[in-house]
Amino acid sequence: MACSGACRCCCCCCCREGDTRTPEELVQWTILGDSNEENEILPRKDYESLDYDRCINDPLMEVLESMDNKKARKYEFVKWIVVFGIGVCTGLVGLFVDFFVRLFTHLKFSIVEKSVEECSVKGCLALSLLELLAFNMTFTFFASVLVLIEPVACGSGIPEIKCYLNGVKIPGIVRLRTFLCKAIGVLFAVAGGLFVGKEGPMIHSGAIVGAGLPQFQSITFKKIHFNFPYFRSDRDKRDFVSAGAAAGVAAAFGAPIGGTLFSLEEGSSFWNQALTWKVLFCSMSATFTLNFFRSGIQFSSWGSFQLPGLLNFGEFKCSDADKQCHLWTAVDLAFFVVMGVCGGLLGATFNCLNKRLAKYRMKNVYPKAKFVRILEGLLVAMITTIVIFVSSMTLGECRDLSIPTSHEGNTSLHQVSVDVNSSIKTFFCPNKTYNDMATLFFNPQEVAILQLFHQDGTFSPISLTIFFLLYFFLACWTYGISVPSGLFVPSLLCGAAYGRLVANILKTYIGMDHVYSGTFALVGAASFLGGVVRMTISLTVILIESTNEITYGLPIMITLMVAKWTGDFFNRGIYDIHIKLRGVPILEWETEVEMDKLTASDIMEPNLTYVYPHTRIQSLVSILRTTVYHAFPVVTENRGNEREFMKGNALISNNIKFKKASILTRAGEQRRRCQSMKSYPSSELRNVCDEHVNPDQAEEAENIVQQMLERRYTPYPNLYPDQSPSEEWTMEERFRPLTFHGLILRSQLVSLLIRGVCYAENQSSATQPRLSYAEMTEDYPRFPDIHDLDLTLLNPRMIVDVTPYMNPSPYTVSPNTRVSQVFNLFRTMGLRHLPVVNAVGEIVGIITRHNLTHEFLLAKLRQHYITS
Amino acid sequence: MACSGACRCCCCCCCREGDTRTPEELVQWTILGDSNEENEILPRKDYESLDYDRCINDPLMEVLESMDNKKARKYEFVKWIVVFGIGVCTGLVGLFVDFFVRLFTHLKFSIVEKSVEECSVKGCLALSLLELLAFNMTFTFFASVLVLIEPVACGSGIPEIKCYLNGVKIPGIVRLRTFLCKAIGVLFAVAGGLFVGKEGPMIHSGAIVGAGLPQFQSITFKKIHFNFPYFRSDRDKRDFVSAGAAAGVAAAFGAPIGGTLFSLEEGSSFWNQALTWKVLFCSMSATFTLNFFRSGIQFSSWGSFQLPGLLNFGEFKCSDADKQCHLWTAVDLAFFVVMGVCGGLLGATFNCLNKRLAKYRMKNVYPKAKFVRILEGLLVAMITTIVIFVSSMTLGECRDLSIPTSHEGNTSLHQVSVDVNSSIKTFFCPNKTYNDMATLFFNPQEVAILQLFHQDGTFSPISLTIFFLLYFFLACWTYGISVPSGLFVPSLLCGAAYGRLVANILKTYIGMDHVYSGTFALVGAASFLGGVVRMTISLTVILIESTNEITYGLPIMITLMVAKWTGDFFNRGIYDIHIKLRGVPILEWETEVEMDKLTASDIMEPNLTYVYPHTRIQSLVSILRTTVYHAFPVVTENRGNEREFMKGNALISNNIKFKKASILTRAGEQRRRCQSMKSYPSSELRNVCDEHVNPDQAEEAENIVQQMLERRYTPYPNLYPDQSPSEEWTMEERFRPLTFHGLILRSQLVSLLIRGVCYAENQSSATQPRLSYAEMTEDYPRFPDIHDLDLTLLNPRMIVDVTPYMNPSPYTVSPNTRVSQVFNLFRTMGLRHLPVVNAVGEIVGIITRHNLTHEFLLAKLRQHYITS
Repeated sequence: MACSGACRCCCCCCCREGDTRTPEELVQWTILGDSNEENEILPRKDYESLDYDRCINDPLMEVLESMDNKKARKYEFVKWIVVFGIGVCTGLVGLFVDFFVRLFTHLKFSIVEKSVEECSVKGCLALSLLELLAFNMTFTFFASVLVLIEPVACGSGIPEIKCYLNGVKIPGIVRLRTFLCKAIGVLFAVAGGLFVGKEGPMIHSGAIVGAGLPQFQSITFKKIHFNFPYFRSDRDKRDFVSAGAAAGVAAAFGAPIGGTLFSLEEGSSFWNQALTWKVLFCSMSATFTLNFFRSGIQFSSWGSFQLPGLLNFGEFKCSDADKQCHLWTAVDLAFFVVMGVCGGLLGATFNCLNKRLAKYRMKNVYPKAKFVRILEGLLVAMITTIVIFVSSMTLGECRDLSIPTSHEGNTSLHQVSVDVNSSIKTFFCPNKTYNDMATLFFNPQEVAILQLFHQDGTFSPISLTIFFLLYFFLACWTYGISVPSGLFVPSLLCGAAYGRLVANILKTYIGMDHVYSGTFALVGAASFLGGVVRMTISLTVILIESTNEITYGLPIMITLMVAKWTGDFFNRGIYDIHIKLRGVPILEWETEVEMDKLTASDIMEPNLTYVYPHTRIQSLVSILRTTVYHAFPVVTENRGNEREFMKGNALISNNIKFKKASILTRAGEQRRRCQSMKSYPSSELRNVCDEHVNPDQAEEAENIVQQMLERRYTPYPNLYPDQSPSEEWTMEERFRPLTFHGLILRSQLVSLLIRGVCYAENQSSATQPRLSYAEMTEDYPRFPDIHDLDLTLLNPRMIVDVTPYMNPSPYTVSPNTRVSQVFNLFRTMGLRHLPVVNAVGEIVGIITRHNLTHEFLLAKLRQHYITS
Repeated sequence: MACSGACRCCCCCCCREGDTRTPEELVQWTILGDSNEENEILPRKDYESLDYDRCINDPLMEVLESMDNKKARKYEFVKWIVVFGIGVCTGLVGLFVDFFVRLFTHLKFSIVEKSVEECSVKGCLALSLLELLAFNMTFTFFASVLVLIEPVACGSGIPEIKCYLNGVKIPGIVRLRTFLCKAIGVLFAVAGGLFVGKEGPMIHSGAIVGAGLPQFQSITFKKIHFNFPYFRSDRDKRDFVSAGAAAGVAAAFGAPIGGTLFSLEEGSSFWNQALTWKVLFCSMSATFTLNFFRSGIQFSSWGSFQLPGLLNFGEFKCSDADKQCHLWTAVDLAFFVVMGVCGGLLGATFNCLNKRLAKYRMKNVYPKAKFVRILEGLLVAMITTIVIFVSSMTLGECRDLSIPTSHEGNTSLHQVSVDVNSSIKTFFCPNKTYNDMATLFFNPQEVAILQLFHQDGTFSPISLTIFFLLYFFLACWTYGISVPSGLFVPSLLCGAAYGRLVANILKTYIGMDHVYSGTFALVGAASFLGGVVRMTISLTVILIESTNEITYGLPIMITLMVAKWTGDFFNRGIYDIHIKLRGVPILEWETEVEMDKLTASDIMEPNLTYVYPHTRIQSLVSILRTTVYHAFPVVTENRGNEREFMKGNALISNNIKFKKASILTRAGEQRRRCQSMKSYPSSELRNVCDEHVNPDQAEEAENIVQQMLERRYTPYPNLYPDQSPSEEWTMEERFRPLTFHGLILRSQLVSLLIRGVCYAENQSSATQPRLSYAEMTEDYPRFPDIHDLDLTLLNPRMIVDVTPYMNPSPYTVSPNTRVSQVFNLFRTMGLRHLPVVNAVGEIVGIITRHNLTHEFLLAKLRQHYITS
């Protein structure tokens, strides 16, 4: 019933995103104009990429030269300690959040319940409602205010972590302030009775701990600054963020293996044994830190580790008396498949509605004053509270309480949380019965899930249906308001209600008495969660670990698989939807087969801004100030030069060669710079350019003659022996193909300029001061901007030799490499810039993350079909 | 006690392999001569590499052009079906092996036990021993004979699978005959009472199923041949082998997640979400197929899936009565660390002894007649049988039987295998007591492990010590004889005895009553197994899944970590030792930091044999017959030519260009070929070479003149404008730098020749017949040899245009790339050949797997220290 409705609804609203299309359709679609252009949010260009590739330049080589195996081992040992620290801290964060959520929730419910009990006699239930409203709205208000302080703390945090691990830097995502707002905010959001979970934010918190702890400094709090310069590269940081995110999962679900797989699935395209082993250790540390303290604090058995994770599904077990009972049988698998399909449809509906809502918010809420967001949060809190209260009071049915069987009687410490009968609510119900709606609504969500999994007493189908529908729509509305909010627990609860409903129907109307309701509830929960988030391996393992029952592997896996396939037919997972809405240029796992019709030369950025091995400061500053590129190829133009440049495998530089090169350098730069400035808005900058052109051009003419004279003495023949040097050369002749020698980053260039690394024209480049690795990475991750540079301190005629600092051997591809190969190399190696170099070593373009996003490739494919 | 002995023993025999050394030591060591040269087995050059990289050439592009997303999805669906099939088949193989092992073992023990009972009265125990000897030696004989039929079936198979997944092709390793010998052989070996496990061979069997099933043909049985040409590439095959190996682990241990991680840890350097998801599905299929049939056959409850995997550790659970009981506490962790250290030492000793034994066997057993191997097997079987029998009869102590507690009374179907008291042996013991030694020795190994984990009754420390020592040395001797033999179960049993011994000592002598013996036995088993095999993540997960208790995560992980670190201090894991002994050029996970002092140009193979885009058949045949390289760079020599070649991004070819190129081609080839033939043994081949030289040289002189005349008409200036063409050119002038255009495999060239893909000199290359993708891959994986080619069918003057079939865009590196980056690219992308190309596009060398092995890098590093 719900399924068919979901299906119809979804088909009309955001159906078939990743659709099959024939080339003809594609072309037609393009020619007729992109009808969905306005709906589509294209990846934004202003997100920076992370760089996972090591740039082994001279400063790093110095470090490596001094590094023997003993030092390497010491460094490795520090990493283990740091990873352990991350695990422990993440565990403690989980403990903190959990402790206060429990405290506040307990406080709230005990006061309100007492009031309800009293008022049900006196008839003052409205007062109880007001009490509950006061609690919930206050808590929600705090959560909203915290998100106003740091807007990145909003939502679950998993999309952001996914982006980070994928290689996109989202500003502020791993800062200490975000951490504080998120961890405290989620505590209030959950305590405020909103239909949100604390798992997503906990994962985000773990990731921030991972990013921050090994840096030993903070930008929010300037005073926190130790002199510990290791681990200051994107590569190391990303490893630690992986570990932290895994620890977050481990703490939230008690699933260390699932956590490890989560961070592998979301992030590391690169399977590194040593890293994975550290990540697993970090997860284990987090799980058992949390476990240790919870065992101690909650059950005063310090030193034991018997408690499972924060989210625990209890023990699924047939009572020993019933020999006919099986948790599941081969026949049930067929039902699980059907439930997977329905769960996928429900999830797709959820995602679709939430996407529409998010778009509406982007248009109508975000542009308005900030307090509007707080108001929305308070509105949601109010309506949720009223729904909870009213439905508990009026819609519940009184159901018989199951008599605890002998099995439930002898629960050991293992099964502490499974003591389901202690948490039922009996509002207005006679003795030995309980109010089923109130039991689900008037408990923390985790307890409600346990009720659905393990309560032997039945829930009425009507109550379950109402609960499911209310919860579904409210949770959908809630995800996206300005509070830190996870999605796992609401989805699980919603799905568990649906699964339990199916079990009830099977038992009551079909007459299948042997089905085990708990298994169906679990499968329902898995199917709905799978339909919403569309995770695969890691979710399977997380759920298996949460149930602590390996035999549930197959049903959970099949359900998740079917749910994912069904959902993918209609739209993407909720996290991907929100990533797309933000316009983050995320890279998929692999390209579609169709894309192999394109080659690297089809998708590269052919318009390059480049630098020469030796460049005048004035040129460098102009380039840096007038472009926004993050990396510049280091090139030479003249074949004669380039031969010498390569000679003896060392980058020899002397004045003669410099002169030849730098003439062409500046000329080339001027041309390109002025070209690019035609499209540049600031007229001021254009003036800067014009100013420089004239003196340079005069000098250029003079230098070219000199250069041509020098050519006679070069030991290698040059390419134009018959032509005499003349002023009639066209621009095309002057700017001949560029041989590629390396890649230098904007941040490296700025560092060189700020530290005054340069030499005078009449000196050798050997006189240039050398920077150490520590100096180069000192400002990581926030390198100074070129506009902060005080030009008056620099002599613009000085020359910078960039060769010791460039990356002399980045991975490159040839122009006719197929897109799938390019994509594989880029994704697997975690690159940021991939130069395209032709068969004779000339750079013809550069590929960045933006050239590999699905949208970009699709646009290029359309072009390809039109032109071919 | 055992520890310190182990330590001393190990230090003297194979201590500190991966030792720290200063550069000075390294140089000195080299200058003084390699003292350990004779002991060290260097990687052999004759192992072929697998190729994981896709070669997107014209035939494949044709396939891709015709492939739309719909077809791609269909192809994907077939993969899922195949993966499911692999899982089911592997599960069935596990079922088959397990069934017959159980049958034979039951038969054997029941007959012998009956005889012992009778004889203990009559005093004819020698007769019983003879009966047991007859059984065991017959079974062992069968196993040995099967290994004689297919020698690759010997041993555990994990080293071989590790090599395969690492990218080395070991002949016969994934053949149907190997599969049959392995699966049936291991059955007899285990039934024969040898101290071997069936897990390793089961993993190997799974891998063979994975490799074979998707091929739909067999070389052993020629009749099995369906026309299904998909999945015939190293890339696809390796994916399926990963899945199969994972399924093998899953079937053997009931650990689907552990299996997935195993195949990731051992093989795929590349984390591919879609692949991992399939591998997990495959593992799940295997686990639950096995589960389904075992539930049905053994317990007649068809349709339920309650039984765990073949190797199951039972349920660790405190009895509910004992509130003081904890499985483990924080204090125990300290003991676990110490046990990890001891386990590591024991493992290192085991490996060390086994290595010496293996070397002895290589020198003294293998060169002899084959029946000697059978004799060794029979000798081991005999001594093992005698040890089992005699120690059971004479060395056992009678211990009190624990009264089944209420908890053990109500075991449900879950705990069927945990009913420990049913498998005790009471030889010569009064009622209510049992013979502890006989209980361990006179049971299948899996049952003995369960006894050590769960038997509440005690084992005497003396019995445990004797058992441990006997088992240790016999297992060490057994691993390596000519039978299929796993190592997991013997190691677990040996380690469990050690762990139980520690628990006994703690309980009896230290007075720590609260320790849970089962946990200590488990930790002991983990530490010993970890010390022997040195696996990390996958072993942790496998053990967690086998215990089905997530709370054991931390102790198991810490124990394994410590055991690995301790063991690695002395030597490598047993699988790596055996891989090294075979001289397989396996690649580690990463290079040592020190290696970054080397660059690609230091380690590459600079002496190249190459082909031109258009080559005469006679040249190709000569190259193929006189070299052993598996790939040839496709190059051009003349800059003028190369410009044209590149023009318009299409590989234009015409007769004029061909002539110029081919003159130089043949000249160059002749020189190289004749050079290489100087070191070539066959004088016949040298004659072939000499024969060809003379006519060619005459032609060559003529052609060079023609070429030089043609040069005038080329639109691009050439590099030597001042020199007139002359016969006085030195070889160096003739063989100028080569521009790299692509890579062609030997197998591709042979395919082209055999199918007559060529064109006549006076025709255009467009007249050359085109091969389809199916034709190119038809012979996979055993491509025809060049020596099988019938030369009389070919006109040697015809020309082959290789450009449509070469890999036009392999990944390349520049000569100054650091070794760590080269290694990363090679390992992660699963390459086979990595061309080294300099800044102007000239190929300067090629890197293969052999240039990246640890031994090769170390040798180059020594050279580096000497020269610098």
